[in-house]
Amino acid sequence: MYIDCLQYVAPSPQVFLQMREAQMDAVHITVGYHEDFAGVVQNLQTWNSWFERCPDLICRATSVKDIHDAKANGKTAILFGLQNPFPIGTNLAQIELLHNLGIRFCQVTYNQQSLLGAGCFESHDGGLTDFGREAITEMNRVGMVIDLSHASHQTCLDTIEWSKRPVTVTHANPKNWRDVPRNLKPDVIAALVEKGGMVGFSLYPHHLANGSDCSLADFANMVKGLMDTYGPNHFGIGSDLCQDQPDSVVQWMRNGTWKKDPDLSATFPAPPSWFKDNRDFPGLADGLTGAGIANRDTAGVLGDNWMRFFETAFEPL
Amino acid sequence: MYIDCLQYVAPSPQVFLQMREAQMDAVHITVGYHEDFAGVVQNLQTWNSWFERCPDLICRATSVKDIHDAKANGKTAILFGLQNPFPIGTNLAQIELLHNLGIRFCQVTYNQQSLLGAGCFESHDGGLTDFGREAITEMNRVGMVIDLSHASHQTCLDTIEWSKRPVTVTHANPKNWRDVPRNLKPDVIAALVEKGGMVGFSLYPHHLANGSDCSLADFANMVKGLMDTYGPNHFGIGSDLCQDQPDSVVQWMRNGTWKKDPDLSATFPAPPSWFKDNRDFPGLADGLTGAGIANRDTAGVLGDNWMRFFETAFEPL
Repeated sequence: MYIDCLQYVAPSPQVFLQMREAQMDAVHITVGYHEDFAGVVQNLQTWNSWFERCPDLICRATSVKDIHDAKANGKTAILFGLQNPFPIGTNLAQIELLHNLGIRFCQVTYNQQSLLGAGCFESHDGGLTDFGREAITEMNRVGMVIDLSHASHQTCLDTIEWSKRPVTVTHANPKNWRDVPRNLKPDVIAALVEKGGMVGFSLYPHHLANGSDCSLADFANMVKGLMDTYGPNHFGIGSDLCQDQPDSVVQWMRNGTWKKDPDLSATFPAPPSWFKDNRDFPGLADGLTGAGIANRDTAGVLGDNWMRFFETAFEPL
Repeated sequence: MYIDCLQYVAPSPQVFLQMREAQMDAVHITVGYHEDFAGVVQNLQTWNSWFERCPDLICRATSVKDIHDAKANGKTAILFGLQNPFPIGTNLAQIELLHNLGIRFCQVTYNQQSLLGAGCFESHDGGLTDFGREAITEMNRVGMVIDLSHASHQTCLDTIEWSKRPVTVTHANPKNWRDVPRNLKPDVIAALVEKGGMVGFSLYPHHLANGSDCSLADFANMVKGLMDTYGPNHFGIGSDLCQDQPDSVVQWMRNGTWKKDPDLSATFPAPPSWFKDNRDFPGLADGLTGAGIANRDTAGVLGDNWMRFFETAFEPL
């Protein structure tokens, strides 16, 4: 089972063919960064049109059964998620409605302060807000997977403690491997694993030691170290693949619409040579086994661990 | 000049006639608590229909000239404000657009965490956010008056320090007179006055010493004490009059849509006997002069101080 638990690829038949070439069983796709609710609905409409146009390659998925069916039919299951809770607004009832629309992952915030909690780039880290606690409880109830990627340290700790269900960080790496705000301190990883959560390893260069020059062996050794410490069952891949997106997209991701003088200098970094698109996914196995990870645990990282987590994650309590 | 810098009266010809009976020159009316942008637009449409129906009593006002014209024509000028920055969303450009729509006051938050800052009932007081600083600077630029009512202590201090223009608290009282989260600590009052800001005294019972039983003399003595300490020019009235609103409104104010188990027990408290509606406004003068406040300074509190503040507040920098 091959599962990538975070991509923001620009959809195209070419990309879907690459997913099939890699025999990707499921990919979690972001349908909202800075968009409001109407913008998310538009993105879902766009994906529906791709499902209609490419029915032999991809299909909409909202459950574990959908993923199994996709695999049986030789398709890649597309799961939806939000990197920003902004479409919830201040309305708790939006959470179930977004779940009704098929969205299965929702971040607590994207980099800055949200109404739910502080982000990893926000100056002050106040952790989870009062509304954040209400929202986490509601996400628990309806079966919306809580994603702590881009959240602050305290928001991660508060959420892991408050949530009644295991939570995820779909795309990040350990901060002691690459020290950037987006990566995770050991106490977050430990607390998340303790509660049955999942971390998806990011392959985005800014999250990798040595950036674009990171070797697969170095990445695999980092994975091996975490699996030795925390056991083999709590880790997967969330590559953060942003294939075929123009640099204007990363500038929009960084700046949104909230800065008077946005920094428009950002460009997408070159991907590591060993992960340029979905076709490189199966090859990750060579790196992981090369680092001494057992075949079964390598299969866990490449999809089986996410699948086990999904078994109980998407349904209402 | 009689100015009440905060009311949430249910609009009706009867209320407008009471405004005229009191010879109110201007009233700042809230057009958004928990509403999103579309909800605020609907409220503005409702007010426009009242202006059309009652052209001899009230008029829309967005400038000092409008207030002078209203007075000259025997009408009450209605100014618009938001008690919640939620309609801004994450879009800095919404601030100028809201100003274009005629909104002249905007709170940094309403009780809880907003995207701009922490509220006075939020568990953690993180002060002004990164987006909050951007928003304050933009409000300064376009001439949107910043209102710190319902903000947390640190958010007040941060905003007063960050803002390039004087700020207001349109409706609150000193915390050492009535110790509730909505009232202001001395350091906030001192910092606000130091920067040329204005505090509007609230006549809402929960903000008054002894609540609904507060006497006018007690209120006036509190005012006298502040004017002795900080000078006579920085204080006005923001009565928080919620006349003719059903209790469902105060429950909505308190709970919004963000709580799973809203507290629906709240009811509007009985107003103090000396301020039941606009017709009681002129009578406040007797209380203030009775406390030893000079006639000129009483006139300042009842409207002249707000008018002087407005002279430079509504226009772009």
